[in-house]
Amino acid sequence: MGIKYSERYRVPFYESDAFQNIKISGMLAEALQMSGVQSNLLGRSDVWLAEQFNYFWAVIEHEIDIVRLPKFNEEIIIETEATSYNKFFCYRNFWFKDLEGNVLVTSKSTWVLMDRETRKVERVDDEIVSPYESEKVSRIVRPHQFIKKSELENAKESSYTVRFSHLDMNGHVNNAKYYDWASDMLDLDFHRIHQPEKIFIKYNREVRYGEAVVATISQADLVTRFSINDDSAQIEIHWRKIEKD
Amino acid sequence: MGIKYSERYRVPFYESDAFQNIKISGMLAEALQMSGVQSNLLGRSDVWLAEQFNYFWAVIEHEIDIVRLPKFNEEIIIETEATSYNKFFCYRNFWFKDLEGNVLVTSKSTWVLMDRETRKVERVDDEIVSPYESEKVSRIVRPHQFIKKSELENAKESSYTVRFSHLDMNGHVNNAKYYDWASDMLDLDFHRIHQPEKIFIKYNREVRYGEAVVATISQADLVTRFSINDDSAQIEIHWRKIEKD
Repeated sequence: MGIKYSERYRVPFYESDAFQNIKISGMLAEALQMSGVQSNLLGRSDVWLAEQFNYFWAVIEHEIDIVRLPKFNEEIIIETEATSYNKFFCYRNFWFKDLEGNVLVTSKSTWVLMDRETRKVERVDDEIVSPYESEKVSRIVRPHQFIKKSELENAKESSYTVRFSHLDMNGHVNNAKYYDWASDMLDLDFHRIHQPEKIFIKYNREVRYGEAVVATISQADLVTRFSINDDSAQIEIHWRKIEKD
Repeated sequence: MGIKYSERYRVPFYESDAFQNIKISGMLAEALQMSGVQSNLLGRSDVWLAEQFNYFWAVIEHEIDIVRLPKFNEEIIIETEATSYNKFFCYRNFWFKDLEGNVLVTSKSTWVLMDRETRKVERVDDEIVSPYESEKVSRIVRPHQFIKKSELENAKESSYTVRFSHLDMNGHVNNAKYYDWASDMLDLDFHRIHQPEKIFIKYNREVRYGEAVVATISQADLVTRFSINDDSAQIEIHWRKIEKD
């Protein structure tokens, strides 16, 4: 069991969508920020990691289960734990809970260490991860099997432009942006009566400034599949219909 | 003098740009959020305002002076004060300070109360603003004189699409988004060697979902002027060249 870290968080208006629910992209960004705060506290900041190893952390996968989305101005608890790791992958959970401790959202994420120069995945060094007290395991969690872009049925495309405001500090498109690009392919009327209940996100390749972005969508009943730039990122969203009040 | 409210704030990675500076749009969103927190504390929440008067607050103008932009992971103090008001306008300042109290950024903003049904500006009622202890004044602060779109020289246009993720809880384009639309018309190389030192933003009309957005830019030396949708929003940015290290 890894060391847990939690913070209270009040959903601000600028992370709330048109239906007063927390934005998924904002929720993911906040989660990543919190893992950074924990790393700082454990003496494993991004600066330390860059100076000691010339590495950086990259999240490559999210699996998100949503019981209920936190609402605007709701105070919640975000909890995180680096649960386990093996040769190449580190696993970290995030829980978004109400103040009674009920889990609203769970996100299981997979991380890799990458070299800042070669942009290649590196082996997990015990010195880097030992302060998190997560379990060293041999098994690799079987990743979700996405349907490849080439096999998506009834696919439709939209194009986007990578702009300055989309970039994160590494000069790449901010991870959370992919979700927006995907979700924005569905119109307001769809969002009005659907909410995500399960989301899989896989980041395969970085998208850089100046690249054209082509997003592909395929919809079957309550499952939508997205591919950004030929599977550079893959997103699968399972929706539930919202009951009318 | 109004009651001051301040909070510590650490610049998160998702509000940091490619050069590790705080994003202007994120800074504006955080400022607005803080004014909401203060209003809550003073018993004048948005819910109260809606229930008692059927009004909401709208910021119509920002004038921002930047000495230095807060950096990623820097801990700063954000301070705010509703300074004064007259028949129709309320004035509120925000200061972004380092921990020694040096002012890094100042934002002077102008607010109006709008009716939720008619979307018209309403008179400022003393009952609404008295808890802020800001000064009642007769004079109206002369707004910044923007150059109209029709008079912009060497204007170039870009088009955007309003998408679900751009909407705020009112179903309109999030205010902060206009700055991104404007600033994104300048490319990464420009941003690499320029930083804003003075920004004027005027919001004249809401932009709604489904509207086509045409952004116009006009550049003269170190001043760029933007008009979003025929002056629905006007932005003027004065840049300084960044000295090389």
